[in-house]
Amino acid sequence: MKTKKVTFLNDPIYGFISIQSPLIFRVISHPWFQRLRRISQMGLSSLVYPGAHHTRFEHALGGMHLMQEAIRVLKKKEVSISDKEAESMQLAILLHDIGHGPFSHTTEATLAGIISHEEISLHIMNKLNEELKGALDVAIAIFTNQYHKKFMHQLIVGQIDLDRMDYLKRDSFYSGATEGNINSKRIIEMMAVVDDQLAFEEKCIYSIEKFLMARRLMYWQVYLHKTSISAEFLLVKILQRVRHCFENGISPSLSPALGFFMSQKIGKSDFSGEALENFLSLDDSDIIQGLKTWQYHDDFILSKMSKMLIERNLLKIKIQTYPFDPSEVDLKIELLKNYSFKESDYQNFVFTGSISNQTYVPLDKEILILLKNGKLTRLQEANPFFSSNELSQIQVKYYLCYPRNTNLS
Amino acid sequence: MKTKKVTFLNDPIYGFISIQSPLIFRVISHPWFQRLRRISQMGLSSLVYPGAHHTRFEHALGGMHLMQEAIRVLKKKEVSISDKEAESMQLAILLHDIGHGPFSHTTEATLAGIISHEEISLHIMNKLNEELKGALDVAIAIFTNQYHKKFMHQLIVGQIDLDRMDYLKRDSFYSGATEGNINSKRIIEMMAVVDDQLAFEEKCIYSIEKFLMARRLMYWQVYLHKTSISAEFLLVKILQRVRHCFENGISPSLSPALGFFMSQKIGKSDFSGEALENFLSLDDSDIIQGLKTWQYHDDFILSKMSKMLIERNLLKIKIQTYPFDPSEVDLKIELLKNYSFKESDYQNFVFTGSISNQTYVPLDKEILILLKNGKLTRLQEANPFFSSNELSQIQVKYYLCYPRNTNLS
Amino acid sequence: MKTKKVTFLNDPIYGFISIQSPLIFRVISHPWFQRLRRISQMGLSSLVYPGAHHTRFEHALGGMHLMQEAIRVLKKKEVSISDKEAESMQLAILLHDIGHGPFSHTTEATLAGIISHEEISLHIMNKLNEELKGALDVAIAIFTNQYHKKFMHQLIVGQIDLDRMDYLKRDSFYSGATEGNINSKRIIEMMAVVDDQLAFEEKCIYSIEKFLMARRLMYWQVYLHKTSISAEFLLVKILQRVRHCFENGISPSLSPALGFFMSQKIGKSDFSGEALENFLSLDDSDIIQGLKTWQYHDDFILSKMSKMLIERNLLKIKIQTYPFDPSEVDLKIELLKNYSFKESDYQNFVFTGSISNQTYVPLDKEILILLKNGKLTRLQEANPFFSSNELSQIQVKYYLCYPRNTNLS
Amino acid sequence: MKTKKVTFLNDPIYGFISIQSPLIFRVISHPWFQRLRRISQMGLSSLVYPGAHHTRFEHALGGMHLMQEAIRVLKKKEVSISDKEAESMQLAILLHDIGHGPFSHTTEATLAGIISHEEISLHIMNKLNEELKGALDVAIAIFTNQYHKKFMHQLIVGQIDLDRMDYLKRDSFYSGATEGNINSKRIIEMMAVVDDQLAFEEKCIYSIEKFLMARRLMYWQVYLHKTSISAEFLLVKILQRVRHCFENGISPSLSPALGFFMSQKIGKSDFSGEALENFLSLDDSDIIQGLKTWQYHDDFILSKMSKMLIERNLLKIKIQTYPFDPSEVDLKIELLKNYSFKESDYQNFVFTGSISNQTYVPLDKEILILLKNGKLTRLQEANPFFSSNELSQIQVKYYLCYPRNTNLS
Repeated sequence: MKTKKVTFLNDPIYGFISIQSPLIFRVISHPWFQRLRRISQMGLSSLVYPGAHHTRFEHALGGMHLMQEAIRVLKKKEVSISDKEAESMQLAILLHDIGHGPFSHTTEATLAGIISHEEISLHIMNKLNEELKGALDVAIAIFTNQYHKKFMHQLIVGQIDLDRMDYLKRDSFYSGATEGNINSKRIIEMMAVVDDQLAFEEKCIYSIEKFLMARRLMYWQVYLHKTSISAEFLLVKILQRVRHCFENGISPSLSPALGFFMSQKIGKSDFSGEALENFLSLDDSDIIQGLKTWQYHDDFILSKMSKMLIERNLLKIKIQTYPFDPSEVDLKIELLKNYSFKESDYQNFVFTGSISNQTYVPLDKEILILLKNGKLTRLQEANPFFSSNELSQIQVKYYLCYPRNTNLS
Repeated sequence: MKTKKVTFLNDPIYGFISIQSPLIFRVISHPWFQRLRRISQMGLSSLVYPGAHHTRFEHALGGMHLMQEAIRVLKKKEVSISDKEAESMQLAILLHDIGHGPFSHTTEATLAGIISHEEISLHIMNKLNEELKGALDVAIAIFTNQYHKKFMHQLIVGQIDLDRMDYLKRDSFYSGATEGNINSKRIIEMMAVVDDQLAFEEKCIYSIEKFLMARRLMYWQVYLHKTSISAEFLLVKILQRVRHCFENGISPSLSPALGFFMSQKIGKSDFSGEALENFLSLDDSDIIQGLKTWQYHDDFILSKMSKMLIERNLLKIKIQTYPFDPSEVDLKIELLKNYSFKESDYQNFVFTGSISNQTYVPLDKEILILLKNGKLTRLQEANPFFSSNELSQIQVKYYLCYPRNTNLS
Repeated sequence: MKTKKVTFLNDPIYGFISIQSPLIFRVISHPWFQRLRRISQMGLSSLVYPGAHHTRFEHALGGMHLMQEAIRVLKKKEVSISDKEAESMQLAILLHDIGHGPFSHTTEATLAGIISHEEISLHIMNKLNEELKGALDVAIAIFTNQYHKKFMHQLIVGQIDLDRMDYLKRDSFYSGATEGNINSKRIIEMMAVVDDQLAFEEKCIYSIEKFLMARRLMYWQVYLHKTSISAEFLLVKILQRVRHCFENGISPSLSPALGFFMSQKIGKSDFSGEALENFLSLDDSDIIQGLKTWQYHDDFILSKMSKMLIERNLLKIKIQTYPFDPSEVDLKIELLKNYSFKESDYQNFVFTGSISNQTYVPLDKEILILLKNGKLTRLQEANPFFSSNELSQIQVKYYLCYPRNTNLS
Repeated sequence: MKTKKVTFLNDPIYGFISIQSPLIFRVISHPWFQRLRRISQMGLSSLVYPGAHHTRFEHALGGMHLMQEAIRVLKKKEVSISDKEAESMQLAILLHDIGHGPFSHTTEATLAGIISHEEISLHIMNKLNEELKGALDVAIAIFTNQYHKKFMHQLIVGQIDLDRMDYLKRDSFYSGATEGNINSKRIIEMMAVVDDQLAFEEKCIYSIEKFLMARRLMYWQVYLHKTSISAEFLLVKILQRVRHCFENGISPSLSPALGFFMSQKIGKSDFSGEALENFLSLDDSDIIQGLKTWQYHDDFILSKMSKMLIERNLLKIKIQTYPFDPSEVDLKIELLKNYSFKESDYQNFVFTGSISNQTYVPLDKEILILLKNGKLTRLQEANPFFSSNELSQIQVKYYLCYPRNTNLS
């Protein structure tokens, strides 16, 4: 008997995820992709949502699975997609997040500075493409929006894309915040392509409304959960302090790869070569091992903050819709009077800033609706709900972090 | 307005888990308990079931939640349980697994040798009890089965206990192996206590059957999945090799705590004190950081094996119901002829052994059924299904691990 | 051994529903309550959502289950609720919908005319109360909002009440429109009582937003699904035609109870006595048997419409946000030119009208938010999202029904 | 823009079910198929599992959906299936249960006597085939196992077939007996075809074990639930009494179609023609309307039993593994001493009999396993578990039904 070999991965959300070509199999097996198994998808959110330990690896596979669904639906609707294009669409979404560092977004700005994870993804894709002798050319063109069939890029990067669909479903599933679950099946079934642009059939406008509202809810309730961002600010402060220690010649013990990034600032132009190589060996465990070691470092501030994070003894945090009065900040600084900190050190334990989110962006990356009469329109015209100011404006909130009491531990 | 403070934790399986006393809150907040956030529940299973990144922390909380349910049901059936006992039952299940090391069972035998994780749990509970001035006395008595109300221990350690209920549900949920999901609500609702022994009402015998079969299935399909055990054997071999390197004076770089256990053998009597302290600072990240470093160690075998595990380039594995013929093993050793290994080094890459499981153990820790007429009987008498030899005998399978080809990488 | 008897009902949504007192058991066992097993919860929606065959019986039990949860949460927060009050709150929600007729809302206006299902519920509760010698006094006071603890009524009839929570979850579950699922656990956990009024803790405002949006979505996408309302209009027209036949002396064959309501108009004052007795023997099967018989009635219009509904050969329906132009209606009437209808008969097959829904009603039955500082505020002040006009205004849409083609079959 | 029209049906279990050809669309729209919307899938089980109101309509569609999945999997494994065959496989499973009468199995033996629902299905398929001018020829050949590719029939009628997969999933979903849920995705992915026979890849033997055990559990716990069978026996007794009344010239009022079957015995040879026509207009509502009317019939036994069923005031039932002693039956008959019944009338309220089930049938319709080495073997050889006597023998239990007390109401 002859049985064509199909490879499956188990997934608690979709049941099975199939790997549909040897090239895709090879990319998934590559050590750079396997590294994603060690990068938490939701940063430090597991400190608030204990089930949320899932990684960028599952998310990338989930995106690929939804891409297979979208391709199936669009082909059934007689959108022309060649086998090569289908494979490249899957590769593009599979690799779109490969540039994430430890704890995903949490360390992004601190670690590699001005270089975004998307740029790093592109560096890695290019390097992998060399190794694969150009097999990723089309995937890279799609990822960078240089491919002529625009909808292929829009499926990966848009206001309603497969990346977002998977992370909303997945983050909702693992966190238990069931409100974020969205009906990806329905939205994908309603996809259409008009003049190479992605559009959605009119009868799914309530599912789209639900999608945008679910994302809004996940931002305010989960991603920007106050305890979670308090933990993430703490980690950022710790990495800045490590850098500060390096500058002051009291280098903390850490892994070589993490040391590479902590002991110097990397410019955009330097990122290929040695920097990229070091980046590709980083994962969550470099940070955790660092934190565990730094608990006992001589620098009081570094050791204190590291111990706080390891033991989940976080700063308190207050959130409001208007900026904090400086006098309130000063009152909190008072809590630290037991310590002979320098002025500049206070800001490790008492600091303020803002967070923001926007439910629907009317002008950028339009969501197009395909009306029953065959015409296209923009979402906010099909559903007056989205002309609401509250939804289309950026919403800003302000936070103030401070110690629980006058004794930091 | 006066609102009594109740603390909740999110859980994707039960929705919310409530913390019902300040003492329980204090124990959960303790750094030793927080460490469980960094110990994978299912060892290296996430290499096969990518969603299975959950930790001992969630499992311990889940067990506590089911204990709250069981207490509620039993009190409704007028079983006498004081507030102090209810708190202690929760503490006992919360702490029953606190003695797990990195990747749970995977490193258990290699790391602390002859000391089981249950013994370490007891060491930690005793130490914590000192800190808490005896507040855990009853919990410890329950855990060690010295408390006169035997059913309290049986709820934690038995053939159908809350520990198993939570891990079957949880491991099934995160792995996506839905066959392992069991109806904990129904079984708990059917619990009864007769003469201080735990029993189950007759009308749930099919749910019990389902429970035992689900556990059987999870063992053979998930816990003993061949790829997963291949990975775990590899990790064991690696740790043994690290120990070997220490003995030969070429100590690999590793965290101090891991070094403590790799550089010496700890006897049962030595485990309190320094050993326990080191144990309490170990978690998965010590192993992952070790593996990443050891990839570049001078010892060829250590570096090769570490690289294989980090890159998920595992040994092949074959499983059968009878022992492997030595000639078949020799044929696999042939694959290594390119390498000038010593005789004793072959066994790092080609080795054989056995795994086993038993669905129902007729004599040990009886499952008691409460008949409608008020009498007790044993499960195998209430349901003839369990007199089946296949279920009550230990089932053994044999495995053979070997490299993919003559080139180890 | 002594085991207190607890009765359970299976429920696919909550697992088990427990019956907590002999009085409640007696009410549920009563033939008038058992009748709800034969009344579809969602009218004719199963013609569009084939899984939606659930009945008022399960919904009433589900509401009671959520009431038990709410009572548990509020008592934990030290809200005073006596055992008698707790029982009455459960009875009130259990019975609040007992006045529904065949296919719930679908036949409400046609069958008993100006008497709403809530009024009929009250008639039945009063009659049952006589039989139970006043045991329902408190339940009826709560239902009619005459009880001094207002929150007890608000839990049953409000903008966020347990009735709505259960029907959103349940209708979403059975229809497969997963977007309507809401997190009842979280909202109930956040309930509070201030000055005998129901309020919600501030940190659940996004769950409330989600709840109101889920309800909005269920209205537009499911309850007002165009095919579903087309079927319901058809049934209404059929019942009107049956009445017309009675008036013209060509009485169609039907069950005595249905005949009672079709052969005369019942006034408000007449509803107790004979009318109520007949009402209590009506259920979906009276309508279905009627339709099946009427397919062969001499009145062409009645037989045609009945056959259409039984065979699910429905009128086409068009929906838009502005009224239909009379000329468009006339064009559709043209389709009927083959038939020698009287002028007044056209309106059985071509008719227009409007449907509406309102997401949030700012003034009526306020949703109160309990701020962290202990003060109360109104939802639209805590969450600016709800000041959106789109949400707080009644939204109206217009429909036009017409035959598929010039041949009615 | 050109969009190929695809029709979807909502389904709470699979999300969407697609209709893949105009012929299938036409069959589903046919009044004979639409009738299945009014036939309960699980008989009277909703009296025990209140959520279980689903119908044969959804089940038939669900089976078609799984057939689409199986076709997709097998084609990927290069099993040759033409478009015509694929359509016919879907039609065959869609129509396999179309011969069910009111409440499915419950009325089967009483209504049409010796003619099984499979035979009636075939009658209806043949009649429909005439109307469709032979379009169902292949579907009928598959259904009757006359098609040369045996696996197509085995997918519909076997020990592990798509019919069973759907009903286990569906009945488990709606009843809330979660233990019956099976992993249809996994089993279907593991299907193979060898020499035109259906086989399953070796690595799913634990899923198959789970499947057979889930079915066993659903039988004993759900389908043969004692209260549920007590209700079903009551309905059977009622229909027999109706027949008895007809024979004695005191015909109860009922629908013409039901009257057709109650007033005469239909032989196998008479079933086409008038009998079939009457059968096709029967559904659950004929029975319910009958019961409601018969409550007031002059025959005391008929009215008593009808009232009992409508009000869910069922006979008590006792179940045991050995036959009941006649003296125990006599004791129960004593309960009826208040009534001046004839000897032969007692058996309406006190009766005994047996129920049975078999988990795995070793010889009939073998389950074939495809070993990794490419050879075929039988399930009981691949998994020693199934050589267990308990599983392969028919298990029998005995029941005794009797009134609650000496007063029948």
